[in-house]
Amino acid sequence: MTTDARPIGVFDSGIGGLTVLRELVARFPNENFVYLGDTARLPYGSKSAPTVRKYSEQNMKFLVSKNVKAIVVACNTASTQVAETSFEGRPVYNVIDPGSLLATQKTKNKNIAVLATRATIKANTYENKIKSLLPSSSVFSVPCPLFVSLAEEGWHNDPITDQVASRYLSELKDKNIDTVVLGCTHYPLLKSSIQKNFSSGTTLIDSGEAIAQIMSDDFKSGTIAANTGVANSDLLIYLTDTGPQFESLAVKLLSDYTTKKIKFETVAVI
Amino acid sequence: MTTDARPIGVFDSGIGGLTVLRELVARFPNENFVYLGDTARLPYGSKSAPTVRKYSEQNMKFLVSKNVKAIVVACNTASTQVAETSFEGRPVYNVIDPGSLLATQKTKNKNIAVLATRATIKANTYENKIKSLLPSSSVFSVPCPLFVSLAEEGWHNDPITDQVASRYLSELKDKNIDTVVLGCTHYPLLKSSIQKNFSSGTTLIDSGEAIAQIMSDDFKSGTIAANTGVANSDLLIYLTDTGPQFESLAVKLLSDYTTKKIKFETVAVI
Repeated sequence: MTTDARPIGVFDSGIGGLTVLRELVARFPNENFVYLGDTARLPYGSKSAPTVRKYSEQNMKFLVSKNVKAIVVACNTASTQVAETSFEGRPVYNVIDPGSLLATQKTKNKNIAVLATRATIKANTYENKIKSLLPSSSVFSVPCPLFVSLAEEGWHNDPITDQVASRYLSELKDKNIDTVVLGCTHYPLLKSSIQKNFSSGTTLIDSGEAIAQIMSDDFKSGTIAANTGVANSDLLIYLTDTGPQFESLAVKLLSDYTTKKIKFETVAVI
Repeated sequence: MTTDARPIGVFDSGIGGLTVLRELVARFPNENFVYLGDTARLPYGSKSAPTVRKYSEQNMKFLVSKNVKAIVVACNTASTQVAETSFEGRPVYNVIDPGSLLATQKTKNKNIAVLATRATIKANTYENKIKSLLPSSSVFSVPCPLFVSLAEEGWHNDPITDQVASRYLSELKDKNIDTVVLGCTHYPLLKSSIQKNFSSGTTLIDSGEAIAQIMSDDFKSGTIAANTGVANSDLLIYLTDTGPQFESLAVKLLSDYTTKKIKFETVAVI
């Protein structure tokens, strides 16, 4: 059996991608991971398509230089600008395809909401993808720009976040939504505030869970070779800017999901 | 009398600096201005000191290439990393020195609050400056990270912004503050929510007004030569990233302050 101990490379503009990383680390304990947080240039959600494309390419090149065996684009805004399924010989996983697929599998009444940054909504990638998988579905897209700042401020279960969510999501009240795509990797951190605006049977789709499901299938089919050996005990997080606040939040977000020792290194990505 | 028709160059990471630009444009109608918004890399408030320094230098070089006669650093976070008073032969105005000076002139009881981003507070520049001007003063610094997103979302007179302000500023309740420095150029947009947390006699210091006062003195003393001719009818705003939302907000913010025609151009600043 082929074994491949090279790490899986995951990138995002900041902390959001850690909600993807934590699902992958928990689901694939034998694998090695490296994470790149482009904190010097965050956030991506308010930037134009060509700028996001340029940054994403630079990030993928950086991960290739770290000898990864696969690349995970753990940022929805970046995923709208990364259409390719491989980059310099490595398979590329974006977060939009798995989230869209899972949403179309979970919905019963075909009324699907997509919550995301302004840039992601504007790119229309979710709506197009969901419609191509389930043409009879209705997709309601809502930009929620303040959610990223609230998640980064750590106001994860908070009356102010509840009110912001209620304001953004009020337009969905009469839409009989049964499936909600959390179309920004920060948003799982605000799940409790978001859930309050939907009936209890509504499914929230977390990109991290969706991508872990697809990768699991690809390990089984041999599309990517698993590491059959023991994984490293370190989890290396590269940051393009130093930030004690990021580091403490990262440790907090990952600690329930892995026993690996988390190490940080500041790097230049251009 | 010497006349100098070259423009005054103003830069910020995004829209915040427009609160400075609008004061300058209103105060000096004969002058020409160019503005650079580094929207591809905003916000600066969460970035490290060396990164903010690098971006600021690149922005100043860009303005010099546009033949400016003076440079205004219309961003508090950038101002903490621009200590020099001239750059390639042009006088440089940061927003911290004028704001600090005006605060020490306005305060009666010497209890001064500084509201700013996490990066500005961490740099301690306001506190050091105010203490050097008025050693017997007490300075209370409060980081208010969500204010930038709220200002950019346009929630300028809003119950949610009121609650965020109330939470951040509750620690100042018993401090008998009579002067509040709005230590981020976005914050004047949230004046009404901020004012509610202080007694009616409290002075809010707006960087734009403070810097206009200093520049006025420098025009009178001849430190910089005024334009005695008629100003151009255009106001050119350079952006490092395209953004229709920025453009409409910019026009809205400036329209009450100038009759100049506002033009936008996207540029690379590296």
